[in-house]
Amino acid sequence: MQQRFEAAALAQLPPASREPCRLHEAMRYAVLDGGKRVRPLLAYAAGDLSGAPGDALDAVALALEYVHAYSLVHDDLPCMDNDVLRRGKPTVHVAYDVATAMLAGDALQAEAFAVLGASSLDATRRAALMTTLAQAAGTAGMCGGQAIDLAAVGRALSLPELERMHRMKTGALLAAAVRMGGQAGDLPPSCARALASFGELIGLAFQIVDDVLDVESSSAQLGKTAGKDAQQNKPTYVSVMGLATARERSHALHAQALAAIEDLGAAAQRLRELADFIVLRSH
Amino acid sequence: MQQRFEAAALAQLPPASREPCRLHEAMRYAVLDGGKRVRPLLAYAAGDLSGAPGDALDAVALALEYVHAYSLVHDDLPCMDNDVLRRGKPTVHVAYDVATAMLAGDALQAEAFAVLGASSLDATRRAALMTTLAQAAGTAGMCGGQAIDLAAVGRALSLPELERMHRMKTGALLAAAVRMGGQAGDLPPSCARALASFGELIGLAFQIVDDVLDVESSSAQLGKTAGKDAQQNKPTYVSVMGLATARERSHALHAQALAAIEDLGAAAQRLRELADFIVLRSH
Repeated sequence: MQQRFEAAALAQLPPASREPCRLHEAMRYAVLDGGKRVRPLLAYAAGDLSGAPGDALDAVALALEYVHAYSLVHDDLPCMDNDVLRRGKPTVHVAYDVATAMLAGDALQAEAFAVLGASSLDATRRAALMTTLAQAAGTAGMCGGQAIDLAAVGRALSLPELERMHRMKTGALLAAAVRMGGQAGDLPPSCARALASFGELIGLAFQIVDDVLDVESSSAQLGKTAGKDAQQNKPTYVSVMGLATARERSHALHAQALAAIEDLGAAAQRLRELADFIVLRSH
Repeated sequence: MQQRFEAAALAQLPPASREPCRLHEAMRYAVLDGGKRVRPLLAYAAGDLSGAPGDALDAVALALEYVHAYSLVHDDLPCMDNDVLRRGKPTVHVAYDVATAMLAGDALQAEAFAVLGASSLDATRRAALMTTLAQAAGTAGMCGGQAIDLAAVGRALSLPELERMHRMKTGALLAAAVRMGGQAGDLPPSCARALASFGELIGLAFQIVDDVLDVESSSAQLGKTAGKDAQQNKPTYVSVMGLATARERSHALHAQALAAIEDLGAAAQRLRELADFIVLRSH
């Protein structure tokens, strides 16, 4: 599925030979050759349950990764985290320039909706997918979480505050990935509810593991600057609850996520494997 | 209609009292109290022809103005035009900070799609509206035009190159405003074609008048920094064809735009008035 996604992204992104070339190059640089593709893989795996057509799932996977990639490009800018390493490469504003990086992020967000709008699905599904993505990306989701993160630097957050921030900043788009894989096809309501729970639980587990890895791993392993959270005095699960408790909590969430989709049978097997990967990964 | 729009924006934007407060404040600051509202007014006026319901046109108008406002916030940032005055007020990054301004722009783009997704229209219309907006905002439209603009600083552009840049940077969203006012209701194909021509012609006229006003008017009249284009050595219609010819061209486009909707009768009256305003305005 990862290969399928890479091929879809290569084909769908505007070619670097098309004007404005530098913008298109920067967009391709931001999306291609890197990343774990967790959101696309979650969407494809949820598609095993909904029976969504492959080309529609490609569009969903691309839209999710475009929004994720744009958020990384903007987060790495000098006015935000000012980071120089991402996905094992220089960040977009280092490889290009700050103005191009900002524009490439802006354009990727627009293209995320455009690729859903151009998909072969019926209008009801296209409208539902675009709406889910917009809500996950907006102030009640990713951008809102990012703003809380910005305001939290140097402040102590309580555990509920930290959890709310991460539900919005990272969890919303991961949960949307699972949900959109369902919306692209057909799901009985009980199955949709199980998927929604799974998406929320695994979204939170993902961020806790990210916080743990930021402490435990090297920049080379992560492909991004390690130890950044502590250095920037950002509240994390590790700073709030300690390393061991954070690890335990990620395992508890993993178990709950698996329990949520216990009754979904063999078609949920890839979702289970992704839950394992998300919690047991080393990068 | 402008009052109707202001009331809709006041009610629809996330309240500044809701967390994350600073982000929501900055989004409200970027959208409220300012601007000519040309895109919303074009959408409402096209709605006179399509018979679209008022609340659906509110959603269309909000989505268009959110995308326009986000583009202004990002354009004004230090890494782009580094401007301090917009709509007669300090720019968002001056009133808040650069990180908040970038995030407010990002969030406004997402909310533009969210407000269309939440409208009361059927799924076919919602999907069409979101798709039109995404195409107008993306690399074939606004962001692409912005990237060409960025690459053109200090370079001489030919008239066709300049025109292509402006068709994308400003024209695409203005044309989308007219088109979306139609898509929110029902239009016979001949009427939709007339509106499409009108939107393209008036979009181009708008930018030529902007270039002329940048030379002829004061910052106080414009509510933004005047004389900026020449100072930044940006190619404009005035620098490429001279002031008198640029004025003439805007009047010719105005006449063509009116001719395109000549057969549409009294229901097109507000579109005609907006065409007059766009070309004859002093700010």
